Amino acid sequence: MKVGFIGLGRMGAGMAARLIAAGHEVAVYNRSSDKAKPLVDLGARAHTQVAEVCRGDAVFSMLANDEAVESVVLGPDGVIASLGKTTVHISSSTISVALGEKLAREHQCAGQRFVAAPVFGRPEAAAAGKLFVMAAGAPRAVDACMPLFEAVAQRTFVMSEQPAAANLVKLSGNFLIAAVIETLGEAIALVSKGGVDPERYLELLTSTLFSAPVYKTYGSLIVKREFEPAGFAAALGYKDIRLALAAAETLRVPMPCASLLRDRFLTLLARGGEALDWSAIAQLVAQDAGEGAARVPPPSVPPAA
Amino acid sequence: MKVGFIGLGRMGAGMAARLIAAGHEVAVYNRSSDKAKPLVDLGARAHTQVAEVCRGDAVFSMLANDEAVESVVLGPDGVIASLGKTTVHISSSTISVALGEKLAREHQCAGQRFVAAPVFGRPEAAAAGKLFVMAAGAPRAVDACMPLFEAVAQRTFVMSEQPAAANLVKLSGNFLIAAVIETLGEAIALVSKGGVDPERYLELLTSTLFSAPVYKTYGSLIVKREFEPAGFAAALGYKDIRLALAAAETLRVPMPCASLLRDRFLTLLARGGEALDWSAIAQLVAQDAGEGAARVPPPSVPPAA
Amino acid sequence: MKVGFIGLGRMGAGMAARLIAAGHEVAVYNRSSDKAKPLVDLGARAHTQVAEVCRGDAVFSMLANDEAVESVVLGPDGVIASLGKTTVHISSSTISVALGEKLAREHQCAGQRFVAAPVFGRPEAAAAGKLFVMAAGAPRAVDACMPLFEAVAQRTFVMSEQPAAANLVKLSGNFLIAAVIETLGEAIALVSKGGVDPERYLELLTSTLFSAPVYKTYGSLIVKREFEPAGFAAALGYKDIRLALAAAETLRVPMPCASLLRDRFLTLLARGGEALDWSAIAQLVAQDAGEGAARVPPPSVPPAA
Amino acid sequence: MKVGFIGLGRMGAGMAARLIAAGHEVAVYNRSSDKAKPLVDLGARAHTQVAEVCRGDAVFSMLANDEAVESVVLGPDGVIASLGKTTVHISSSTISVALGEKLAREHQCAGQRFVAAPVFGRPEAAAAGKLFVMAAGAPRAVDACMPLFEAVAQRTFVMSEQPAAANLVKLSGNFLIAAVIETLGEAIALVSKGGVDPERYLELLTSTLFSAPVYKTYGSLIVKREFEPAGFAAALGYKDIRLALAAAETLRVPMPCASLLRDRFLTLLARGGEALDWSAIAQLVAQDAGEGAARVPPPSVPPAA
Repeated sequence: MKVGFIGLGRMGAGMAARLIAAGHEVAVYNRSSDKAKPLVDLGARAHTQVAEVCRGDAVFSMLANDEAVESVVLGPDGVIASLGKTTVHISSSTISVALGEKLAREHQCAGQRFVAAPVFGRPEAAAAGKLFVMAAGAPRAVDACMPLFEAVAQRTFVMSEQPAAANLVKLSGNFLIAAVIETLGEAIALVSKGGVDPERYLELLTSTLFSAPVYKTYGSLIVKREFEPAGFAAALGYKDIRLALAAAETLRVPMPCASLLRDRFLTLLARGGEALDWSAIAQLVAQDAGEGAARVPPPSVPPAA
Repeated sequence: MKVGFIGLGRMGAGMAARLIAAGHEVAVYNRSSDKAKPLVDLGARAHTQVAEVCRGDAVFSMLANDEAVESVVLGPDGVIASLGKTTVHISSSTISVALGEKLAREHQCAGQRFVAAPVFGRPEAAAAGKLFVMAAGAPRAVDACMPLFEAVAQRTFVMSEQPAAANLVKLSGNFLIAAVIETLGEAIALVSKGGVDPERYLELLTSTLFSAPVYKTYGSLIVKREFEPAGFAAALGYKDIRLALAAAETLRVPMPCASLLRDRFLTLLARGGEALDWSAIAQLVAQDAGEGAARVPPPSVPPAA
Repeated sequence: MKVGFIGLGRMGAGMAARLIAAGHEVAVYNRSSDKAKPLVDLGARAHTQVAEVCRGDAVFSMLANDEAVESVVLGPDGVIASLGKTTVHISSSTISVALGEKLAREHQCAGQRFVAAPVFGRPEAAAAGKLFVMAAGAPRAVDACMPLFEAVAQRTFVMSEQPAAANLVKLSGNFLIAAVIETLGEAIALVSKGGVDPERYLELLTSTLFSAPVYKTYGSLIVKREFEPAGFAAALGYKDIRLALAAAETLRVPMPCASLLRDRFLTLLARGGEALDWSAIAQLVAQDAGEGAARVPPPSVPPAA
Repeated sequence: MKVGFIGLGRMGAGMAARLIAAGHEVAVYNRSSDKAKPLVDLGARAHTQVAEVCRGDAVFSMLANDEAVESVVLGPDGVIASLGKTTVHISSSTISVALGEKLAREHQCAGQRFVAAPVFGRPEAAAAGKLFVMAAGAPRAVDACMPLFEAVAQRTFVMSEQPAAANLVKLSGNFLIAAVIETLGEAIALVSKGGVDPERYLELLTSTLFSAPVYKTYGSLIVKREFEPAGFAAALGYKDIRLALAAAETLRVPMPCASLLRDRFLTLLARGGEALDWSAIAQLVAQDAGEGAARVPPPSVPPAA
């Protein structure tokens, strides 16, 4: 198939490379052209206009956040302004449900085909074609994209005919991961202070009831305190929890654990942990349990207002 | 009236002095006899046996916690073992509802008169006879104690015929005070970081909707960061929140704000703040907002398990 | 002074009437002209264009929310487009800090005078000239407005030279009120279930440490369960907690009690309590403690997705 | 080996049967003798005195809670009073860390051998010999019990030389399971209200990042709302969260998620859900999101105090 790709960050670059490897004809666009070079070496054509990658069978967009999507998709000379009548726009970015709904409306008004397809998986999984795709949209459009999803994912789940439902599912998934980090952080702080070796404890958990990748990955980061370099930065984790809570507000679903996570991330950012891995919220638990230098000092001089 | 007094801490000493000043005949008991000296100078008789102060019209006990009450009231040679048939035992200690109920049962089994009469007020209020008494018990017994309450309190509130209800009310009051500290701490952290002078802010609050003593007292401590010396130590505040939650468990009343306060105090204790004033939990709010040295460090070496 | 007034809801109408009563020359504007009638009867002139009330010494705007302010102040033919060079715009609406900052910037760019002056007080207080004004802005502009504030308020507090600081203070105040409702709700649920008469309990609290208007007003509503008609609707309380949290996010101040309140209001709205008084969140506490029909049913049929 | 077994509830009966099946010589004790019958049919000898099952190589106790252990192990004619000098007492009950420490002390004072060996797994896993054992105690004593653990468990993890550490680990594990229930409940309420089919959603989660047994088991119960009959009753879940929090208090580890779970269970119990499966806390999330009959009523008559 002829497919465009917009957004060559670590995730997007891996996905585009997989599409090329699967034999698709790939045209890439990125604001900074140096990111296109490695993909050109693999066989992609590079373009400097969004419009030039919006004319094939489909075009992926994999952008950092709502602002980038608003600019590149909704802006002048953006995807909506340029999309071919038969081309499917596949939005893989992790964005707000509100923006997902706006994209769906705008594409519909323009008589265009649109599928939301956010993914689970870290950059290494993208490079290995081992992502999980959560697809939502009109069944025919989703079907048309299946060969492309097969190139990037180990499995594709069709969630709904409403594209924004996939954005909601993606955000809820990141909430669940953050909740695992927090609760593992609490449990590990507890047993460590009680004299149990945290590595052995983690082995117990992940060999028994909690044998899921997310416990292994994040449990190991917490036990080893490897918060740098960030696989997924705290600032991004915070953003996704906020987007989940924003969707929950709209739908009127109180989520007290998500509220607690929001406050954890806010604390982490306030204390300068923005660039650490999001699993560093577990370190806040350890500090609240008295570890490290975070003692309450009797302050001699109040700070100026 | 002839009245005994057991427990000459800062609160008890002030109350006993007021009883003497009001013309009552006061007999005091304290484990460490040096605390009795100033009261003897005021006209009290000092005794070294609990039994010797349990034979008048009434005997107050004002002890630090459940353990002290269990020992001095319920123990061998304690109040219950010694109380005269017509003497009213007035329990002013801040204790658990469960222990309050146990005292009521034991006194009833022994055919003795019993009134719970915990108080609101700091040591200065005790010394000035400006406490508030929350009395509960059989109406006749409560009535009999009124002249004594008038000597120590600016006002007495009769809450119930069940003595332990007064203990519950006292604990709920300390919960409400702690909640004022927490919420003032959050509000002050917010407006301070937003560029508002905290003293002016506090003046606004306490001159308008929040013109209660508790906002003035604790707001001032928070703004000035005067957490030492403790008027009421964090360890005691923590104890009372735990006792409120224990009563709430028994009664099956979820109290999420009280749970949050429990975690705040636990954090304060874990970080070494046990002896600070309980208003120091507001300092944790400020630290979570990024103030002071409590940054999240990228730890070089994980601590040993 | 010659003063315009935009926004004749219950609060605005009361304030405008007080300005007339104090001898100021008042010109009113309201989208629906019937609201102007009673004020015209008192001596005001009514206008149908915003511009016509923006030419005197000052013009108040007292509008329901951010959307109304964006439309009436920032929109075409709005206050900023119309304000006289010497006229002070006094914004008394409860709005987000972000919008407060935007208003300040826009007025500054236009070389106009601007003061934020949100208020504490219910409609009855507005009608009686008993509000509290929190003013912020350039000192000369604030000073110029003082005679007007004196007409509507029992006291005026100058908080900052940055107008948006007053918006922040107002939101923080509503957070503190909501926190009083929640914590009183928890305490009253606890002691009621423990057999204490809630009215007597409330009398104790408000006669002693918690003798502030906010405890009396809301304590009484909670004890009597008078949640209709709403003095301040739950939907508005929810909005203000959200705006306080939004400001706290921008300033990076975690406020766990505010998060808890947000979830309470969200629950109240999800269960259909939008139009009840915001003190109805205390009723949720009582329900969580088992009161009423809110038992957990073993549902026979799961609802459709 | 010759092994005694005390406590023939659903878990204990399954474990004892597995020991018999593995060729061990099993003597059983249960307060109500009818529970011994099926095991006698399998080849066990039944006894009516604790002492008679405390003389072999080892004796298991698998009892419901702290009270039962205090009575059967610590009481007169209990395990400690009866244990042979070379017999190892294996405590598999889920108990408080404080009681675990007390047992260790008492056995040590009596010069007896003691191993704590709580388990993960439901009754079906016990019957199938598929439990996970968390063992802690003196290495020689633990080693001596290995053949017994092999009979009941698919895997045994040696956690510490301090027996009570195994109790702590068990409680922390139940906290982690409850946290999965709560967070799945929140996520499922969110996506369901957003129009996503919850079964498909659960399939997505458990096929990808959350492929652990605990997500499958509890996700399915939540989606199907199968809270009866209880696999593990809410009252027991509540007890274990309380014990985890009690241990956390002693160790001074704030665990805000555990606090939130405590309030959830307390709500469930207050509303009459004591006997439902503990996964029914997820139903509270759905109700807070507006589902079912739990609307906030404007109550006509306040309940009597």
